[in-house]
Amino acid sequence: MVHTHLVVVGTGLIGGSFALALRRAGFAGRITGVGRSRENLQLAVELGVINDFCHDVAEAVIDADVVLVSVPVASCGEVFAAMAKSLPAHAVVTDAGSSKQSVIADARAHLPDMSRFVPAHPIAGTEQSGAGAAFATLFQDRWCILTPDATTDPAALEMVRSLWAATGSQLIEMDASEHDEHLAAVSHLPHLAAFALVNAVRKSGGDDPFRFAAGGFRDFTRIASSSPQMWRDIALCNREALVHKLDALIAELGELREAVTAADGAHLLAEFAAAKAARDAWLRKNGDEL
Amino acid sequence: MVHTHLVVVGTGLIGGSFALALRRAGFAGRITGVGRSRENLQLAVELGVINDFCHDVAEAVIDADVVLVSVPVASCGEVFAAMAKSLPAHAVVTDAGSSKQSVIADARAHLPDMSRFVPAHPIAGTEQSGAGAAFATLFQDRWCILTPDATTDPAALEMVRSLWAATGSQLIEMDASEHDEHLAAVSHLPHLAAFALVNAVRKSGGDDPFRFAAGGFRDFTRIASSSPQMWRDIALCNREALVHKLDALIAELGELREAVTAADGAHLLAEFAAAKAARDAWLRKNGDEL
Repeated sequence: MVHTHLVVVGTGLIGGSFALALRRAGFAGRITGVGRSRENLQLAVELGVINDFCHDVAEAVIDADVVLVSVPVASCGEVFAAMAKSLPAHAVVTDAGSSKQSVIADARAHLPDMSRFVPAHPIAGTEQSGAGAAFATLFQDRWCILTPDATTDPAALEMVRSLWAATGSQLIEMDASEHDEHLAAVSHLPHLAAFALVNAVRKSGGDDPFRFAAGGFRDFTRIASSSPQMWRDIALCNREALVHKLDALIAELGELREAVTAADGAHLLAEFAAAKAARDAWLRKNGDEL
Repeated sequence: MVHTHLVVVGTGLIGGSFALALRRAGFAGRITGVGRSRENLQLAVELGVINDFCHDVAEAVIDADVVLVSVPVASCGEVFAAMAKSLPAHAVVTDAGSSKQSVIADARAHLPDMSRFVPAHPIAGTEQSGAGAAFATLFQDRWCILTPDATTDPAALEMVRSLWAATGSQLIEMDASEHDEHLAAVSHLPHLAAFALVNAVRKSGGDDPFRFAAGGFRDFTRIASSSPQMWRDIALCNREALVHKLDALIAELGELREAVTAADGAHLLAEFAAAKAARDAWLRKNGDEL
């Protein structure tokens, strides 16, 4: 792929790490970064993440062969709209968004050829952001979920598979709706629950309600220090699945509340033990990869 | 305190660390461990945690000057009952339970002289248990909340203060009910929420609902790997405060659910940002101590 021109729209942690991972895997083509911050893009050039940059999506993709859209999920629509007119017919587009049905709907609304869009979600990240935080092994051994459908062009799918595989990701394919259900449960719900828990404590009164919080609280609420904007966007982009999961959590908490009220120790023990067993089993299987 | 005889009922992580911390601070008296497991107590002797041991509470406390009851909160009642007849009149008793009103009620039901019982809760711990996990600096710079009341003997209070202070704890005194409210919010509620979250995901279906869980999920649910028995006991020993906090969390989640349903991004952003600000401020103030 010596002559391949890759355009990375959103040259932050994810987009930058994608570029670095491909370079490490031997990608010899040109990589153009697109973004708003000149400082970040300049840094990306200096760090060898990209070859050149541009602030205008339409201009950047004119001779693109592959485009990665790695912007916040709520911004995918405007990026697709911006590239629609100038995207070459042969170009393949992928993304890295945390919700898939909403990104697919945005692509359908704006992209000229849906068959060449292959939705992807690499399940990787750190709490850092920007090109300066990017590193070549971010995706190593992490899941990357692709959600093509029957209309996806097989050659486009093969190209996107090979790119994400080259980053070291472990690929898996499923329906976009299945992806959104899975991620609502193990990622989006915990984030909303962490925010809710901190707010419940914050509003519980006293001058310093967090005074006696310790290590358990710190770990439990770590994800409540995530970007409020990013999580607002994700919540809004995966509303249906997230509401189901919120209802499930509220029901579980209601059940525990009833057991505490009734001093039903046997019920509490059974619920706690089942949770511990499930969590410990998951950790045994996956702990080393995290 | 060369001739002081300290009896530690429950020679696990907390009781063992209390003994080691006092030794390090120069305590030269005799320390007797009480427990059921001969192996654990033998190990405690070998590790220099205690001088000798005994399996019978009543026998152990016959010539005690100070007794630390560091058993699971639900077992405090039977320990108090066991020591009631043989406890010397001058002996001072303290504890290390995570709930205070229930322990005080148990003490009131069984101890011959409540004025010499000084309830304590050192906010420290690890996921380990047993005397082998004990270490002298477990309490260093951690809060230890004492909940004496107007009937507490001043000399007994002074002795317990000096012992916990010698462990390196930062002492603070408050009403038992205030303690229980605080701990329900920052400790008991997060544990129940972590168990509930894991159960909500567990029941969400599919062969492996945890398959795509990552680092955020791991940290959020770490406390769901805690002892189910211990947390059943704590939940049952702090029911009233815990139910209030569960209601507060369910209300917060219900509010977020409404905002997600209504696609109210402004409301979500405000709630997420307030949570992040509160959590970050707490961490800035206390992060180094955790």
